[in-house]
Amino acid sequence: MRARERIRSYAHRTPVLRSTYLDERCGAELFFKCENFQKVGAFKFRGACNAVLCLGAEELERGVVTHSSGNHAQALALAARIRGTRATIVMPENAARIKVEAVRDYGAQVVFCPASHAAREQATERLVRRTGASLIHPFDDARVIAGQGTAALELLEEVPGLDLLIAPVGGGGLLGGTVLAAASRAERPRVVGAEPSGADDARRSLESGTLQASIDPQTIADGLRTSLGKLTFALIRDGVDAIVTADDAATVEAMRTVWMRMKIVIEPSAAVPVAVLLGGELELTGRRVGVILSGGNVDLDALPW
Amino acid sequence: MRARERIRSYAHRTPVLRSTYLDERCGAELFFKCENFQKVGAFKFRGACNAVLCLGAEELERGVVTHSSGNHAQALALAARIRGTRATIVMPENAARIKVEAVRDYGAQVVFCPASHAAREQATERLVRRTGASLIHPFDDARVIAGQGTAALELLEEVPGLDLLIAPVGGGGLLGGTVLAAASRAERPRVVGAEPSGADDARRSLESGTLQASIDPQTIADGLRTSLGKLTFALIRDGVDAIVTADDAATVEAMRTVWMRMKIVIEPSAAVPVAVLLGGELELTGRRVGVILSGGNVDLDALPW
Repeated sequence: MRARERIRSYAHRTPVLRSTYLDERCGAELFFKCENFQKVGAFKFRGACNAVLCLGAEELERGVVTHSSGNHAQALALAARIRGTRATIVMPENAARIKVEAVRDYGAQVVFCPASHAAREQATERLVRRTGASLIHPFDDARVIAGQGTAALELLEEVPGLDLLIAPVGGGGLLGGTVLAAASRAERPRVVGAEPSGADDARRSLESGTLQASIDPQTIADGLRTSLGKLTFALIRDGVDAIVTADDAATVEAMRTVWMRMKIVIEPSAAVPVAVLLGGELELTGRRVGVILSGGNVDLDALPW
Repeated sequence: MRARERIRSYAHRTPVLRSTYLDERCGAELFFKCENFQKVGAFKFRGACNAVLCLGAEELERGVVTHSSGNHAQALALAARIRGTRATIVMPENAARIKVEAVRDYGAQVVFCPASHAAREQATERLVRRTGASLIHPFDDARVIAGQGTAALELLEEVPGLDLLIAPVGGGGLLGGTVLAAASRAERPRVVGAEPSGADDARRSLESGTLQASIDPQTIADGLRTSLGKLTFALIRDGVDAIVTADDAATVEAMRTVWMRMKIVIEPSAAVPVAVLLGGELELTGRRVGVILSGGNVDLDALPW
């Protein structure tokens, strides 16, 4: 994929780690792609970076805009700084101070709006109309999806013969990109999405065949509360074998196990696929499984155990 | 070094990680050798493994013994299991239950003794006399020191042109091995030891030129409370440029910074070199610095911040 070449000199090629302990528990060979080590601490930098690098000179002149209170905000801010363009990030008034500061540290301008989803979208649209800046949507954008897919692509290049790829699903950018990566390879590994049971819109969408909204999602995995978008749903419907859910207790336990056994810091959203693997619902015996550990941004003063 | 070949198929070749943030703070290029990812979660497996692999058939028949309440206990237990020999570990009666269980999980026998250092040594000697087992000392053993040195050796092989290596110092096995590794290379990097200011026997020993004991050490870095041994002192006196200390507040801050920025779990002992680098006492500008992150075994329910 072209995105891979485009972002190569900006994004980290993150390491792939193993765990004898988790292999034994699952009866499989697990290969963990560590996007918690990616710039800004999450895979999100890949998509934002690819999107910004796709812009022409005129578009760069007018800057980029998005709405996000999470990892995409910092990712776009950093990508814009690298490319020398202005980023404006719409954030809810109640966003954590530390996240607002992080975005500003990367040189982006923050515009506050009321905390509802509608208010965010309105504020973003207004900005786009007023400034002519390019909207870089957090997930429902072909450039962003292609960028996120480079994590799985690197994993597939590094580890031959994977039978299965598993990634968490929120808005579906990472999972959609993983589908694209899997489809580009001769071995065509199966792709499974891992979703919190308290925010299982992707599972319901896949099972019903129509896009279902995430209504009042309840999960500790704060990166996975969003609904799928049109683009990501289409990719997931056509390319994902199954969406398997895990409840928050299993996710917290999986997160703790990864910290203890693998000595790496992952956020709850990244632990959902591990919880699914440990949950026993997938047939894993003897399989070679690629796991996308999506990010590692956690508040070290408020751990969930 | 032969130790490198000997343990190659048993110990992990741990990854080397970078941190843009820490590079900028230090004005240097830092290369972190992640022994927190080593088997049993610490570099200790290298030394124990090398020592056990050096034993002949008759010695293996009689088993191995050591005293340790920390990472060396698990390391020797695992090394013995791999080699198919019996390990007996003398542990103080007040050792943490979780550590005792971990040692037993690796198939070793645990013998309890009173908590004093003298009692430990006595119990160990009695065992050696009674069973004929080989004592594998936690650090003052040439085979163990050579094994620990393989961490620095791998780092030097992977990263050309290092100016400086920094490693924590407790009993001196890791630092002594690092001296051996540095001396084996044409570029001959300087070697610096990092020590808690509340357990600064190595600094005092190096400055006075005679072996000083660690008396009533006070530090959160539980792996670094021990005094140097005769062998390790000799190596350190001849091959170490400086011992620089950090207080516990700086160590905890450094540990937290590594967790937050590098997304990896390191224990307090591993954070001492990072605290030294951030402390500003060493001239680092423009230097290429190898940092041995010694281990990652921490109680996730009792973090020091």
